[in-house]
Amino acid sequence: MRFEDIIEKKRDKKELTRDEIHYWISNYVKGEIPDYQVSSLLMAIYLNGMNKKEIGILTDEMRISGQIWDLSDIPGLKVDKHSTGGVGDKVSLVLGPMVAACGAKLAKMSGRGLGHTGGTLDKLESIPGFDIHKTYDDFKKQVKEIGLAIIGQDENIDPADKKLYALRDVTGTVGSIPLIASSIMSKKLASGADCILLDVKYGSGAFMKNIDDAKVLAQTMVDIGKELHKDVKAEITDMDQPLGMAVGNNLEVKEAIATLKGDGPKDLTELCISSGVILLKQAKIYDNDEEAKTALINSIKTGAALNKLKEMVKYQKGDVSYIEHSEKFEMASEIIPIYSTKEGYVHRIDALEIGKSSMKLGGGRETLDDIIDMSAGIILNKKIGDFVKNGELLATLYTNKKDIEEIKGDVKNAFNIQKEEVKIDLSKKIFIE
Amino acid sequence: MRFEDIIEKKRDKKELTRDEIHYWISNYVKGEIPDYQVSSLLMAIYLNGMNKKEIGILTDEMRISGQIWDLSDIPGLKVDKHSTGGVGDKVSLVLGPMVAACGAKLAKMSGRGLGHTGGTLDKLESIPGFDIHKTYDDFKKQVKEIGLAIIGQDENIDPADKKLYALRDVTGTVGSIPLIASSIMSKKLASGADCILLDVKYGSGAFMKNIDDAKVLAQTMVDIGKELHKDVKAEITDMDQPLGMAVGNNLEVKEAIATLKGDGPKDLTELCISSGVILLKQAKIYDNDEEAKTALINSIKTGAALNKLKEMVKYQKGDVSYIEHSEKFEMASEIIPIYSTKEGYVHRIDALEIGKSSMKLGGGRETLDDIIDMSAGIILNKKIGDFVKNGELLATLYTNKKDIEEIKGDVKNAFNIQKEEVKIDLSKKIFIE
Repeated sequence: MRFEDIIEKKRDKKELTRDEIHYWISNYVKGEIPDYQVSSLLMAIYLNGMNKKEIGILTDEMRISGQIWDLSDIPGLKVDKHSTGGVGDKVSLVLGPMVAACGAKLAKMSGRGLGHTGGTLDKLESIPGFDIHKTYDDFKKQVKEIGLAIIGQDENIDPADKKLYALRDVTGTVGSIPLIASSIMSKKLASGADCILLDVKYGSGAFMKNIDDAKVLAQTMVDIGKELHKDVKAEITDMDQPLGMAVGNNLEVKEAIATLKGDGPKDLTELCISSGVILLKQAKIYDNDEEAKTALINSIKTGAALNKLKEMVKYQKGDVSYIEHSEKFEMASEIIPIYSTKEGYVHRIDALEIGKSSMKLGGGRETLDDIIDMSAGIILNKKIGDFVKNGELLATLYTNKKDIEEIKGDVKNAFNIQKEEVKIDLSKKIFIE
Repeated sequence: MRFEDIIEKKRDKKELTRDEIHYWISNYVKGEIPDYQVSSLLMAIYLNGMNKKEIGILTDEMRISGQIWDLSDIPGLKVDKHSTGGVGDKVSLVLGPMVAACGAKLAKMSGRGLGHTGGTLDKLESIPGFDIHKTYDDFKKQVKEIGLAIIGQDENIDPADKKLYALRDVTGTVGSIPLIASSIMSKKLASGADCILLDVKYGSGAFMKNIDDAKVLAQTMVDIGKELHKDVKAEITDMDQPLGMAVGNNLEVKEAIATLKGDGPKDLTELCISSGVILLKQAKIYDNDEEAKTALINSIKTGAALNKLKEMVKYQKGDVSYIEHSEKFEMASEIIPIYSTKEGYVHRIDALEIGKSSMKLGGGRETLDDIIDMSAGIILNKKIGDFVKNGELLATLYTNKKDIEEIKGDVKNAFNIQKEEVKIDLSKKIFIE
């Protein structure tokens, strides 16, 4: 087989076979196909697409390109949850403990934040001592014993994705649905869960800017599940404003703790419950929505979910006293209130702008080498639909930096305030299975 | 400027600016843009195309990527002629001496053969001693003194094309009209001619398989001339059968010599005259077709054209006695006649098959490292339109190889013989200016 022929086939809009995709992925991982040939194929895929069958095969070949973690000797169905990323998205920190408290086994490998989006690993690392590195055996042991583990992506898993992602990043081929979907799904499928729930975000703060693209991506990933006989479901949720009130690492952990105590923002709490219902049904712990919902609400009321978070933190060497006394988290030296200079209803809070501002305050990374200030970020005081008076608090900035005049303006301008009342459409959530 | 942004622009079907194309070509030649980024852009160009303006700029930037040979201190307009390549195409060996004998200055850098197509340089090198390497100064001196020089591509000229061609060859991006046209034209424009005549071949033995693609390529190159204010004309000629009767290096040189003596095949002689008319008008030596045609015919009748070939061979250290006594050329050890097993009219001679067979007999290269047997090749005995009796000679194979049974069959099968008489359409030639 010649790799040139594979490039030419996709260039000419023909379907690639299992043999051809296997040849590509297995030899690329071995270093036997040069990057300059693969990038040409990636651009052909970007422009000519791939059908369901090809995407399924590509995902499968990436999945088997490295170690596969097998959790089948842990009793029950193991679940995993993945968000395509957004601003203020601390769902895993809340949802994980909730479903684990309800008897599910959540085994998750997570990622770092980059640019305006945060990452679950960084948030967890704001808890002093928290260790995101786990061996295969330790990960299995933890899932088996406490039903909850959130760790970093193991480097032995899916080396094809690592190489392909690095190449896509510099060759204009990141934003291709077949490549995004296979990248996400191959890692998930190689890390051992039986059921996967995907949260595909859309809106200014998300990777997918509009709902139609989000639907296509969600459907593509659910279809991969069907091709590869895995239970994959997806919900599509908006990122037109940050999720919850807190943006920034330890600020979000504090909000997660509050939510597990029943004091969380409404949008975050509701999303965790509705996602939890799906996960508990996927795990076959409940087969009806009402029972699952009641169990999830009870996991908060009884403190069981918060306890589960503590168990995980303890298991992963984090200082549990921070969960018990969240006022212990390091506080930024500069706390700057942002006041409204308008009166009216909040129509929109530009999540991209809030995410970027949080990053600039020190709470995120511009490049993967940057070091995060765990205490930096933004607490919103108003959300879409809220009425704001002139001079009223819109948000508070947390930072250890000086010279942040521009960021203050950006955060204020992220709030779109209009005279007219705004109707909040809570029915926006779409579910794909 | 970030190269990723340039890739993304072309990926999104946007027009690239002069600054962007300059950034690409100048930094790629310096080794500052990696192949894996350029191949992604090449695939985006293959699939999304380029407009006239972009192609003109790309050609110009490639042209200035290395040395530019300036022939302006040689009196008169310098002409160049380029064929996109075919089977049995020895036109340059005949046309060059003819137009030079008529007073034109033909300054040509030529290429090697690869696969089923032959190359003028290889053919010239079948003349013992012939040197295709010339310095800039020696090339100018020769053109000035004898009006005719055919040499190899100087490696200081157009390094961008060398790098891009090598990359296109392994990334499925060879067959893109903007990339083919800029590759051909940038080299031609950097090597100093004032007027260029292009012979764009189409048919089984040509790079362009059909006349429509050939028209687009020809028009694209003529348009580059317009963009860059150069006199570029193009003719489109068919390669549905080999040109002339001889295929293979010294066999073709012998046929070229015969043609310069007035004993050449009709199709080759006619093409050389009609192309010569265009070149002599481009060089402003004649402004009317009839006078130019008469001069070209006279250059054969008087022996002036053959003399011009001898002058060039002598100037380039070749053994002129081979031109004077073409029976001196080395003869292959095996001479195998191929007889027809059918009776009827020749409807088609698959030029691709004949070219490949000649290559397999030793007359061509499968890869650039192969060594050519100068005496190997095929002499056709019949051409399209000819009547053939059962048992009559179709062609003769020349080779130093044994075990050529399969090739014998392939050559016989290349002749499509039908009962019906065939009309030859001599009006097929198309001229674009």
